[in-house]
Amino acid sequence: MIQQTYCKDKEKNIEKLTQNIRRCASQGAELIILSELHNTLYFCQTENVDNFNLAEEVGGNSTQYFGRLAKELGVVITISIFEKRANGLYHNTAVVLEKDGAVAGIYRKMHIPDDPAFYEKFYFAPGDLGFEPIKTSVGNLGILICWDQWYPEAARLMALNGADILIYPTAIGWDINDTPDEQERQLNAWIAVQRGHSVANNLPVVSCNRTGYEQSEESDSGIKFWGHSFVFGAQGEPLAQAGEEEQNIVVEIDLDRTEQLRRIWPFFRDRRIDAFGDITQRWGK
Amino acid sequence: MIQQTYCKDKEKNIEKLTQNIRRCASQGAELIILSELHNTLYFCQTENVDNFNLAEEVGGNSTQYFGRLAKELGVVITISIFEKRANGLYHNTAVVLEKDGAVAGIYRKMHIPDDPAFYEKFYFAPGDLGFEPIKTSVGNLGILICWDQWYPEAARLMALNGADILIYPTAIGWDINDTPDEQERQLNAWIAVQRGHSVANNLPVVSCNRTGYEQSEESDSGIKFWGHSFVFGAQGEPLAQAGEEEQNIVVEIDLDRTEQLRRIWPFFRDRRIDAFGDITQRWGK
Repeated sequence: MIQQTYCKDKEKNIEKLTQNIRRCASQGAELIILSELHNTLYFCQTENVDNFNLAEEVGGNSTQYFGRLAKELGVVITISIFEKRANGLYHNTAVVLEKDGAVAGIYRKMHIPDDPAFYEKFYFAPGDLGFEPIKTSVGNLGILICWDQWYPEAARLMALNGADILIYPTAIGWDINDTPDEQERQLNAWIAVQRGHSVANNLPVVSCNRTGYEQSEESDSGIKFWGHSFVFGAQGEPLAQAGEEEQNIVVEIDLDRTEQLRRIWPFFRDRRIDAFGDITQRWGK
Repeated sequence: MIQQTYCKDKEKNIEKLTQNIRRCASQGAELIILSELHNTLYFCQTENVDNFNLAEEVGGNSTQYFGRLAKELGVVITISIFEKRANGLYHNTAVVLEKDGAVAGIYRKMHIPDDPAFYEKFYFAPGDLGFEPIKTSVGNLGILICWDQWYPEAARLMALNGADILIYPTAIGWDINDTPDEQERQLNAWIAVQRGHSVANNLPVVSCNRTGYEQSEESDSGIKFWGHSFVFGAQGEPLAQAGEEEQNIVVEIDLDRTEQLRRIWPFFRDRRIDAFGDITQRWGK
């Protein structure tokens, strides 16, 4: 996976991504994961209608460009685009490109955040494709996006639907006005909740974040994207953990461990599905 | 909470628990948590019908004894009993005793494990009270028991039903034949999944395990209960972490943090309850 900074120039971002993808492929990577909305700066820091110009269709420029690269290098690539589905209808969408360059499938972000400096509800309609893993030559990819990562239900449904691995393209960072203690708690919470999904589902988890400071267009503030992309194995064991620096992480993941783990910890045998119905309620009684 | 070893002599176990409860109360504890099935050795290492003699009713000896102690010390105590509900019907049940000695409520373990040396399906019928927090003078206690801890659904339902805190009386340990690496992965996974529940629900999590080696009655093997009881705050931040030694942990937990956290990370606002229905399926399509 590629953890990098981005700049205002879309072409430069794509050029840097291309170099990093080539480096990962040359190190033997078969599946290459990019962070959320990687073609541009994180434009959701403000609500600006002009930003809809950044959107493109599935099958558009990014799909074609990275599809060609996937085919040339013989790798699977997950990209993250600002999807224009129709006039006035946009999504935050992951597109998975097969080794032959074809679209293996897409996932539309289901949980859309809206917090100061993360005004995503303005830009993205909630996904309507559910929690369906995408079948590829390297496994069934349970792709979820950023805010989805806080929801155990999303991870569980991906697992129930046959995901071999959970993958979170992400754009998360610190409010630079928060204290160092609070920043550390937030980072650790972010790692902890996703590690939990790994353990609860006996699945490897990959989370690919952007890094670097991005100034808001409207205020004195900005977001310090915190990097720290990671990989946990199917038992929640750490396989890789970046810091804040730009970094390509190439790591081998053993998908066969899931079956062994589910034999010794058969969580799926014992789920009280007769008693889980209220999960679909907004709140309790 | 009290992390201790147990022996064959039930009276001695209760005497040691009593001393530890008094110590915790004298240090200012208002809520005292005992580990799972604390009156006896972990009898589920074998399937033996004579062990049903160990069971007692809610309102029986343990309820009365610890109820009197709760009243004398003015504390809330959560005990864990082998419940005899009827002839041939037994549960693994937590009983919460109020400061006045009355029963505040009970929780019957919903997820029942069955693995080599943990033959609980032989002894315990699955709980039928759902995931209901128990109202007490120190908050709404989301008590779950041991194997429940691996299920994000259980934690989520407790949260949706108004739990202020998640509490896991536990009896978990290592197979002494496992490698040190595997033992470490298991311990870390156990901590990680519960820490994840804290983060996902913005709730403090308390897990109280037994410790010490207990020999099987039937084989050369046994279980090395791993201790490591812990407390995480509502953001998944570590507040206390025991090792393997016997230990009373007295820690202050700020229940007011949950509201603040749910303002900055409003997970409950955005849950895709329209898309969670398949959580009640055993497996996907």
